Amino acid sequence: MPPADPLRLVVLARDGSDRVRSAWREVNRFLQDRADVELLAAALDDDLHVAPQGTEMAVVLGGDGAILRACRMFGTKQVPLLGVNLGRLGFLADLAPDEFFDRFDELIERRYEIREHLMFRVRLRRGGEYVDVDGAPGGNEGFLGLNELAVTSRTLHMIEVRLEIGGVPVTTYNGDGLIVSTPVGSTAHNLSAGGPILRQDLRAFVVTPICPHTLTVRPLVDVADATYTLALQNECDGATATIDGRTRLPMTCGDVLELTAAEVTCPLVKLPGASFYAALHNKLGWGGQPRYRR
Amino acid sequence: MPPADPLRLVVLARDGSDRVRSAWREVNRFLQDRADVELLAAALDDDLHVAPQGTEMAVVLGGDGAILRACRMFGTKQVPLLGVNLGRLGFLADLAPDEFFDRFDELIERRYEIREHLMFRVRLRRGGEYVDVDGAPGGNEGFLGLNELAVTSRTLHMIEVRLEIGGVPVTTYNGDGLIVSTPVGSTAHNLSAGGPILRQDLRAFVVTPICPHTLTVRPLVDVADATYTLALQNECDGATATIDGRTRLPMTCGDVLELTAAEVTCPLVKLPGASFYAALHNKLGWGGQPRYRR
Amino acid sequence: MPPADPLRLVVLARDGSDRVRSAWREVNRFLQDRADVELLAAALDDDLHVAPQGTEMAVVLGGDGAILRACRMFGTKQVPLLGVNLGRLGFLADLAPDEFFDRFDELIERRYEIREHLMFRVRLRRGGEYVDVDGAPGGNEGFLGLNELAVTSRTLHMIEVRLEIGGVPVTTYNGDGLIVSTPVGSTAHNLSAGGPILRQDLRAFVVTPICPHTLTVRPLVDVADATYTLALQNECDGATATIDGRTRLPMTCGDVLELTAAEVTCPLVKLPGASFYAALHNKLGWGGQPRYRR
Amino acid sequence: MPPADPLRLVVLARDGSDRVRSAWREVNRFLQDRADVELLAAALDDDLHVAPQGTEMAVVLGGDGAILRACRMFGTKQVPLLGVNLGRLGFLADLAPDEFFDRFDELIERRYEIREHLMFRVRLRRGGEYVDVDGAPGGNEGFLGLNELAVTSRTLHMIEVRLEIGGVPVTTYNGDGLIVSTPVGSTAHNLSAGGPILRQDLRAFVVTPICPHTLTVRPLVDVADATYTLALQNECDGATATIDGRTRLPMTCGDVLELTAAEVTCPLVKLPGASFYAALHNKLGWGGQPRYRR
Repeated sequence: MPPADPLRLVVLARDGSDRVRSAWREVNRFLQDRADVELLAAALDDDLHVAPQGTEMAVVLGGDGAILRACRMFGTKQVPLLGVNLGRLGFLADLAPDEFFDRFDELIERRYEIREHLMFRVRLRRGGEYVDVDGAPGGNEGFLGLNELAVTSRTLHMIEVRLEIGGVPVTTYNGDGLIVSTPVGSTAHNLSAGGPILRQDLRAFVVTPICPHTLTVRPLVDVADATYTLALQNECDGATATIDGRTRLPMTCGDVLELTAAEVTCPLVKLPGASFYAALHNKLGWGGQPRYRR
Repeated sequence: MPPADPLRLVVLARDGSDRVRSAWREVNRFLQDRADVELLAAALDDDLHVAPQGTEMAVVLGGDGAILRACRMFGTKQVPLLGVNLGRLGFLADLAPDEFFDRFDELIERRYEIREHLMFRVRLRRGGEYVDVDGAPGGNEGFLGLNELAVTSRTLHMIEVRLEIGGVPVTTYNGDGLIVSTPVGSTAHNLSAGGPILRQDLRAFVVTPICPHTLTVRPLVDVADATYTLALQNECDGATATIDGRTRLPMTCGDVLELTAAEVTCPLVKLPGASFYAALHNKLGWGGQPRYRR
Repeated sequence: MPPADPLRLVVLARDGSDRVRSAWREVNRFLQDRADVELLAAALDDDLHVAPQGTEMAVVLGGDGAILRACRMFGTKQVPLLGVNLGRLGFLADLAPDEFFDRFDELIERRYEIREHLMFRVRLRRGGEYVDVDGAPGGNEGFLGLNELAVTSRTLHMIEVRLEIGGVPVTTYNGDGLIVSTPVGSTAHNLSAGGPILRQDLRAFVVTPICPHTLTVRPLVDVADATYTLALQNECDGATATIDGRTRLPMTCGDVLELTAAEVTCPLVKLPGASFYAALHNKLGWGGQPRYRR
Repeated sequence: MPPADPLRLVVLARDGSDRVRSAWREVNRFLQDRADVELLAAALDDDLHVAPQGTEMAVVLGGDGAILRACRMFGTKQVPLLGVNLGRLGFLADLAPDEFFDRFDELIERRYEIREHLMFRVRLRRGGEYVDVDGAPGGNEGFLGLNELAVTSRTLHMIEVRLEIGGVPVTTYNGDGLIVSTPVGSTAHNLSAGGPILRQDLRAFVVTPICPHTLTVRPLVDVADATYTLALQNECDGATATIDGRTRLPMTCGDVLELTAAEVTCPLVKLPGASFYAALHNKLGWGGQPRYRR
């Protein structure tokens, strides 16, 4: 095989933990020794909002949380992400450090696939205009997310949210809250709330109520290509929109959230043999199922 | 408005019940009086396996069950179906008799939409070949369904089913059974078993276990364009595959079911204003939700 | 029948709403006209912490919330409560105003039953001592509740709660929160969170996680006569204990909640024919079940 | 310590598997060597319906299934059971063979506790009389169970069961079936169907629907000291009552099952330190919970 072009990488290792710093040193040493790699940048202390020209992939040291952050950070200019998991195996960061070193040749030989994952954009409309996280005007861009939007109450009250999809009224949810999740997010908060698992590369959202007051409402899977409108109704004390468990938008009565599929998707590098279902097995304990029935 | 072409109809009213017969008489009278309709055929006693050349739609008198049957009956040569519901409002047959008469002009003026709905085909593989409902060879065509495939046990034993999607192992389910449902079927057996609701026109299947032994398995939504392989494992006493609650295929250990999206879809006639969510409201009681929490 | 002793009543109508004030005027007129009633007190503007000597029952105007408040208010000196529901039928306040007037003779003739309902007491232990709602020492008495104790986070983070029952470790719950509910509370927050319904007069508690991280944990029903110890572990940001949806105790890491059956029970007056299951039917919509399956 | 009375044992090792036979040989050798044991009987090939006079406990070689069988076998003359589990740890048979040998002195010194477990009796009423498993008259004794009664359909149809508890109508269940479970049975079929876990020594039953048609019905926990009446209604095709997953009673429309707490309870020998919650941890995988949320 003729020598391949050098692989142009950036490394994201921004989390200041000892574990990430130590992994960074090891990865750095490994990359320095190779002639077939070009390390374009490494983000250690600060975020790297734009990847250098020609970046082929960003190696993310950390767990699924680091991938989520990287994905939101790159915004409209996504870069294929390869997660190296330093803790437990993740759904997104599904490569252990050893595997990263052992299978590095497959990266060099470009024997990987890039799978795109649905992201969403949320705008908060108050009165006639879109507002920012502080409630100030100018929130037209909104907020990008990869996992889920959750509407819940900081004062622990029941809230009431009216949902429309594509302009068609769905129902009004009363309860502890409401989650709109991507397929990637379906194994996170959505799963705890009783929602189904969506294959990671589906183009669909799932809407799952948290502790719904109405016993007949069920999780709902609908198309990605529609606007999801969540309007806060009368019961709205302490209501807060949370994106990917991080960004929090305080809401007031009458506020409306508009969620749409983002124009960008999150590209993840997958080595041959990577399987979403294998990850489910490992993470959810499907393999060693307890035999509790007699 | 210039006179439209006459609407070329067939009527399916095969269910021998008094209610259907009486509705048929009324519909027949109504159609005879109109110059803008051509009634090509009416199936009263026997099934109508092929619709006459030029049929624009089949009016189905009955409920959702009659639509399911019509859809399976037309096989690879589907005809747009318009359900007139004689009992409670259905998810598929969502027009009451009065509405049918009142809004007939909209049909004449072709002011309707035809929405396609995912169907599936199941083949039963035993040893090296596909078998029929009687276990005889020659089951290559398999069985068409619109709602769901359910694998359960006639002897009420736990069964064990190994699932692969697109050749990738998912997991092995132990329990009372397993359902693979279309979006249309998601509000039927799947919903009772704890599965999510899928918007009717999604191209996806949902896999929902019935009383699973393993507490970590959850309903799973995956793409329609893959082969779902369900292999009966060791525990298989009395195992039976049921399609749309009707066709039953007795199974034996080692049998494999192969489910794929059918090459045809089920076309339903929708008048302006028809909404899947409105039907959910009515059918599932989302509207008048009981206020049980204080 | 010889004339019965006059029925010695108090009326609780403290909620300042128009509805309650107007009901109070009507009830007051009704009671003034009867020779067989002695109205010992009426709480309109202030709470009535101790019922006058000889009180046979307290008529509570309002809904289930008013009953919950009355029950906590009387503390260790409970009085049989008769709820007159001014809104929708309640689980606790299960008499409509008309029924109250129509069936008043049954009260006079003492043709009612008093059913006792399990209450609980919660103490918050911080370091070596019990603390108050403000975190000040002196919380030995703790807080009385009739519905449930819920531990959740005001900052919407996951929390981690270690549960022991009767000194035996049960498990550590990770997720949005944890509910310990009485039978009376089982149809409130517990039901929304997926917990079972407990017959109102059982002596048992049910422990139900809110959006649990661990997919194998399930609601747990255990005896009332044991101490339930809930210890906040590492993840405790914003953790708050809420009693009956009202009293809120801010918590910090290492805090321990001790829940026991209260020494008092909540006595409710039940007229002949009152049935918990009839209330479930009405409140949960079991009667007119939607026929959504074909 | 003065020499204790010899421990009077029987051994149940009736399951003809190699594993049980080999365990029996080992146990037998062990017991022969001890002066402080009197082996009154060993059931190897046949059941032992009545334990010899003076039996203090029956050592059951096998798993939870063997305990269930032993318990039903002894009928109204129960003997304390000590389960030695030859496979995975069970909920009832919670002693591994090694532990049995190592902790035998604790048995000799009677340092164990006997915990009683609720059993039930089911009678099948057809027309005016109680019938047998074959439908013949003379079923007055009914059938004893330790886990659960399940009513489901052999023909895989929906069935309709009307439930009364203590003569009070609860509701009519439509769906795949209905389970009435003891606390011991709550971790078996009931758990798979979505029911809660009941502490093993509670005196209560839990009623859990299987794939209920009505979305508002939920598992229900009620007192043990009432008659549970399950009446088959119109939809009853293939209906079958199954007790502990073994005994099957074919039913016909109009049949009524009457379930009551049995007059006997199932006594299990518990060595110091045995904990129901520890068993849950091990069996349900609560310990090593997968960290799937980010």
